[in-house]
Amino acid sequence: MPTLLLDRQKCLRNIERMVLKAAGQHMVLRPHCKTHQSAEIGSWFTDFGVNRITVSSFRMAAYFARAGWKDILVAFPFHPGELKHLESVSERCHLSILVDSPAALPFLNHLSSQVGLYIDIDTGYGRTGVRAEDPELIEQIIAKTEANRYLDFRGFYCHAGHSYRAASRKELDDIYLKSISDLERLKSQFNTMGPKLLFGDTPNCSLQKEFGEIDEITPGNFVFYDLIQHAIGSCGLEDIAVAMECPVAGRYPSDERIVIHGGAIHFSKDVVMMKGRSVFGRLVHRTPEGWSEAGEEVFISSVSQEHGVLEKCGKLVRMVNIGDPLLFLPAHSCLTANLMRRYQTLEGMQIDTCTS
Amino acid sequence: MPTLLLDRQKCLRNIERMVLKAAGQHMVLRPHCKTHQSAEIGSWFTDFGVNRITVSSFRMAAYFARAGWKDILVAFPFHPGELKHLESVSERCHLSILVDSPAALPFLNHLSSQVGLYIDIDTGYGRTGVRAEDPELIEQIIAKTEANRYLDFRGFYCHAGHSYRAASRKELDDIYLKSISDLERLKSQFNTMGPKLLFGDTPNCSLQKEFGEIDEITPGNFVFYDLIQHAIGSCGLEDIAVAMECPVAGRYPSDERIVIHGGAIHFSKDVVMMKGRSVFGRLVHRTPEGWSEAGEEVFISSVSQEHGVLEKCGKLVRMVNIGDPLLFLPAHSCLTANLMRRYQTLEGMQIDTCTS
Repeated sequence: MPTLLLDRQKCLRNIERMVLKAAGQHMVLRPHCKTHQSAEIGSWFTDFGVNRITVSSFRMAAYFARAGWKDILVAFPFHPGELKHLESVSERCHLSILVDSPAALPFLNHLSSQVGLYIDIDTGYGRTGVRAEDPELIEQIIAKTEANRYLDFRGFYCHAGHSYRAASRKELDDIYLKSISDLERLKSQFNTMGPKLLFGDTPNCSLQKEFGEIDEITPGNFVFYDLIQHAIGSCGLEDIAVAMECPVAGRYPSDERIVIHGGAIHFSKDVVMMKGRSVFGRLVHRTPEGWSEAGEEVFISSVSQEHGVLEKCGKLVRMVNIGDPLLFLPAHSCLTANLMRRYQTLEGMQIDTCTS
Repeated sequence: MPTLLLDRQKCLRNIERMVLKAAGQHMVLRPHCKTHQSAEIGSWFTDFGVNRITVSSFRMAAYFARAGWKDILVAFPFHPGELKHLESVSERCHLSILVDSPAALPFLNHLSSQVGLYIDIDTGYGRTGVRAEDPELIEQIIAKTEANRYLDFRGFYCHAGHSYRAASRKELDDIYLKSISDLERLKSQFNTMGPKLLFGDTPNCSLQKEFGEIDEITPGNFVFYDLIQHAIGSCGLEDIAVAMECPVAGRYPSDERIVIHGGAIHFSKDVVMMKGRSVFGRLVHRTPEGWSEAGEEVFISSVSQEHGVLEKCGKLVRMVNIGDPLLFLPAHSCLTANLMRRYQTLEGMQIDTCTS
């Protein structure tokens, strides 16, 4: 079976770097836990003084509340199917929710404990959120929030996910500058409410130096990083803290092809484009300390349910035997971790997740 | 939370159709269970007289052996990391494995119960398997198999997965005819061994009428079908037996956009290309009996971890409210079922899988 290995030291360095960055800018780090989904890894953040988190579902919120977290933001637009979960979690911790429409608020008319509310702001991503250029809609949401004694308007949240599509550093910077400027304008327009500004996404939180009036950053992927982040420039290959160990299932020397046990149900079908090719994972070499960049570039170029295919392996195909474990950095660590549901540290410790 | 709905009647019709097709061609249906991964759904096959199955891992084999299946083929190349699982499962049922290299056989020198062995044949897919044009390698595998009293050579297995890439019906037919002709030639070359011919893949098993000397067919996806199969022509939209129910999380009338709670961790990132666009799911309408094709064509055109985005929704965006459940046929039902790990039939029955 494929195994998801975790280099705890790299992971701790990634956490520490982001903690220091936030502190240096007088911001609070509210890491997104959707990437690791693990109480144990969450506790590593606690060791650095982090005391609040972001999650992507009420199920995940319930899990981290049971693990002792007291300040949790569910950064997915609230919809009424989640009301029961919201009420049960809000009894255990200080819960905040995300809203982008006044239509969501009537469902919250019968709360029995205080819930924080952030307004989701769209600065150009085009997924969820009130458009930053629409203060009237924001006013409507705030007015409805104020009419509910159990809801506390806290501020504005923005995930500038279009940073993942940026074709250049210039484009990434433009996305970032517009987002910050939009959020600062809203802070000033609604300054009587004292709104907090929450801003996320790993590319910007990794690459930018100045965060203006941002109060909290909410990146998630940086805890592990991955090949997609490396392609964007958010991290070095040496920062990627997870690698999949997959046994060789077949070798085909005349085609320079290796097939591994490790496919779409382990890596996911997410890809990074490298040199015009779809890449699901990149070979690294096992070392006594963990792993290091392979001399040659060998990629998983296709996956089916259980199989991964390495094309153009060169001499590697003659060096491996059936059953040999090979190590790969994943294209998208969030989806890989979600599928694998368990980590094994280099020291051999098994770490579970909320879906284990 | 998104829910994976299962229309049991459609599923039973898909099973019955394939059972009748196999019987009409004097073949045995050995369905691949990697799609549904469920003992309950497996039992529906038993009701049609099916008594043997294909799976993609030893873990899945162990689960179905516990559920009472007595004849199980693990259609993934055996590698030595699975030896312990192989031994434990082979004590409970008649287990067969897949091999494509003599190098895999020394790991099987210390078996303590009989295990069937099929040789994986590559008729052009280029993933695993001995090339059909390489009888010498097949001879080497058979010779090593005969030297092991616990291994029984059973025949040849072929998954012509390149049928999924066929650009036309003509191309699909060519792939099929070459595969059948390759397998029949091998059956004749090795006729003293009385090899069985096992042939899979849902497109060919759904579309072809004549199966020559094939003994068993091993398709999997047909139990549910999906949008990818529909695009290939394997099924009608009305044959697709699973649909994801996802609540509306956000609506953006000025952009004709709806965002649902249902993303990459529910649907997977697999896509079908429709009219030049990537499609993760297709809207259908709930009816008293289940669901039916929607009048307008509305697609999930992008997914992130928890979100699915419907672009160009037209008037639908003004007809839905936050929290309303929408139904979608998935692009790839195998990966969706693997992620969801649980079904709910239209009658409200909860069905677990081996990963529940």
